Amino acid sequence: MQLLANAQIATMTEKSGGYALIQDGALVIQDDRIAWVGARADLPQHYAGAALQDLGGRLVTPGLVDCHTHIVFGGDRAREFEMRLEGASYEEIARAGGGILSSVNATRAADDAELLARALPRVDHLIAEGATTLEIKSGYGLTVADEMKMLRVARQIGEKRAIHIKTTWLAAHALPAEYKDDRAGYIRDVVIAGMDAAHAEGLIDAVDGFCEGIAFSRDEMAAIFDHAHALGLPVKLHAEQLSDLHGAAMAAGRGAISADHLEWLGQDGIDAMAAAGTVAVLLPGAFYTLRETRLPPVQALRDAGVPLALATDSNPGTSPLTSLLLTMNMGATLFRMTPAECLAGVTAHAARALGLSDRGTLAAGQRADLAIWNVDHPAELTYRIGFNPLHARIFGGDLV
Amino acid sequence: MQLLANAQIATMTEKSGGYALIQDGALVIQDDRIAWVGARADLPQHYAGAALQDLGGRLVTPGLVDCHTHIVFGGDRAREFEMRLEGASYEEIARAGGGILSSVNATRAADDAELLARALPRVDHLIAEGATTLEIKSGYGLTVADEMKMLRVARQIGEKRAIHIKTTWLAAHALPAEYKDDRAGYIRDVVIAGMDAAHAEGLIDAVDGFCEGIAFSRDEMAAIFDHAHALGLPVKLHAEQLSDLHGAAMAAGRGAISADHLEWLGQDGIDAMAAAGTVAVLLPGAFYTLRETRLPPVQALRDAGVPLALATDSNPGTSPLTSLLLTMNMGATLFRMTPAECLAGVTAHAARALGLSDRGTLAAGQRADLAIWNVDHPAELTYRIGFNPLHARIFGGDLV
Ligand SMILES: [Zn+2]
Ligand SMILES: [Zn+2]
Repeated sequence: MQLLANAQIATMTEKSGGYALIQDGALVIQDDRIAWVGARADLPQHYAGAALQDLGGRLVTPGLVDCHTHIVFGGDRAREFEMRLEGASYEEIARAGGGILSSVNATRAADDAELLARALPRVDHLIAEGATTLEIKSGYGLTVADEMKMLRVARQIGEKRAIHIKTTWLAAHALPAEYKDDRAGYIRDVVIAGMDAAHAEGLIDAVDGFCEGIAFSRDEMAAIFDHAHALGLPVKLHAEQLSDLHGAAMAAGRGAISADHLEWLGQDGIDAMAAAGTVAVLLPGAFYTLRETRLPPVQALRDAGVPLALATDSNPGTSPLTSLLLTMNMGATLFRMTPAECLAGVTAHAARALGLSDRGTLAAGQRADLAIWNVDHPAELTYRIGFNPLHARIFGGDLV
Repeated sequence: MQLLANAQIATMTEKSGGYALIQDGALVIQDDRIAWVGARADLPQHYAGAALQDLGGRLVTPGLVDCHTHIVFGGDRAREFEMRLEGASYEEIARAGGGILSSVNATRAADDAELLARALPRVDHLIAEGATTLEIKSGYGLTVADEMKMLRVARQIGEKRAIHIKTTWLAAHALPAEYKDDRAGYIRDVVIAGMDAAHAEGLIDAVDGFCEGIAFSRDEMAAIFDHAHALGLPVKLHAEQLSDLHGAAMAAGRGAISADHLEWLGQDGIDAMAAAGTVAVLLPGAFYTLRETRLPPVQALRDAGVPLALATDSNPGTSPLTSLLLTMNMGATLFRMTPAECLAGVTAHAARALGLSDRGTLAAGQRADLAIWNVDHPAELTYRIGFNPLHARIFGGDLV
């Protein structure tokens, strides 16, 4: 049994997303769970004998949760990024093998060990900033075997590192060249058949899709979601990033745990999400990288009581970002979220976006996944840019 | 004598700002200087016996140079940042003690030890990303004693850490309340008299000012620069950030080493800077934090042959940024600079912005200040966001 004391504790237990901050707080950990949290003055007598760790006034928050990433992929797109800035046209970049299909080709060509070796440094950067739970999507394989390979690598990350991994089946990410004239065939042979195979192997925690003019339609995604539900898998959707296809409303209507991006989301989608309890996952790294100008409807989502999460969207094309702290700053600077909303966005609401109720807040019975920070006030986590004040990370009760 | 081999070496010796990349390169260090750099196949026989360090194909660049910071200050402004996002008006923030004067009050109240203790973690973050030279400005004291205190702390940073510090006298940063009806008195008693006193103590490497409607006029700055020249001190200017006061042209006409910010710079300023060899220091962190939309005239500066540098502008109000890697990404993403220009902007051109010719490039005779990176291509340094691939830093020939 451990007793952490002399700390500010941002429990994040307010439904509205406030810090629910405890000054001069104490927190008791038993095995991998929080046994008690509150003001030190209220500490029950029977915990007073636990091994004491004095935190010197530091801030304790839930371990951070990155609820939307594509962090497993082959190759990288640095040279493509450079060509574009040097003035190359999209056609020239495509001819040089750029674009999402370059990530698909590199992912197909890589074996498990190579994908793992390339992903781990990126995951380590998230861990170094206090992340304890990480979602990882497939979506650069686009064959049954390669999509399954990506999710096996995702599971291996959870064995190699002290972090929880939630896997997401995203075969409906892009249409590969070999199916370009046979959308239905791709959905049947890869998205659906692969879902069955990967689910049988225990590789899938949720099912996602990219609902956009350049990807899959609302009706196609609805059919895919219905299959996921038949397998008992939760669903979520990349929706309304570049246009309003009313994908979020469809997803919410099917009980989606989250709808993600949402720059073009309209009131119908907001109402449907509020009614279904669907979390809005905002991805400012992609907004920043793509130099978007259309902001997600943050105030309308707030007014409707839709929980706001933030995630890195870590991916090689549109968000080569591996910092949740910077994501928080972007949430505030670009999307005008408050620092408390930003912290809730990578803790309580991010956990909820993954369907997890045992983390993201600090309360008795929750997992003992904590981050301890060298800051005077929780707003500093969002305010600073390119700075990592993490003092220590506790994962399932262990300092790691 | 050390021999680094099996490396890609971005020498940054091209005047136009290219990488001047050497594949399968080697670099010889003798004491604190580079003795030789080139393709390994061309290594002179008499260096072949030096202690060999195999870099495994890693990238070597010059140590990074942050040529514009306000990294020494008291207090912080996280709570003000939060209040603004929570909807507080500027008046409410001012009443709560916010704004630049809150940094002035906190800086005046802090002693040397406290200022140093607060600055070091910020400096350490820059060092962890490969910085070897750092400019630090005064400007939150606004009394002779407090401005000198800031620069003494800046010098102490160079004693406590393996990094070169260049100090800048920026008493002409803001007008303090006690002089609000006596601009001439402030310039005479603090800016000029303090410059004399600080210079006598060896605290000043250059003189700067904030030329803006809300700060000091072009004529006021011209008089301050003339005094700096009489003391033999180089000058530079915060110019054209919020409006075009033609400050850059005035500064270039007085041989300024740099003009900084420059969002509103016109052709007159560009031409004067090109003629004088004045470096354009662009500060995307402030542009990002202030959500500016007016871009600095990058293409016109390029066309005129003005060297482009990038810096963090690290400061508590408008750029609480302590990452040169992120600054590079912002230079590309927000200002459309190429990755090679971004790397030159924090090496060769940043050194030049500080009047330093012995660093920022890798060539025989230069200081052995190097950064060694775990990347496959130099563009990755700019492409990735919130990631630190530094493998090692060499400062004056020593691995630190
Ligand atoms: Zn995504
Ligand atoms: Zn500045």
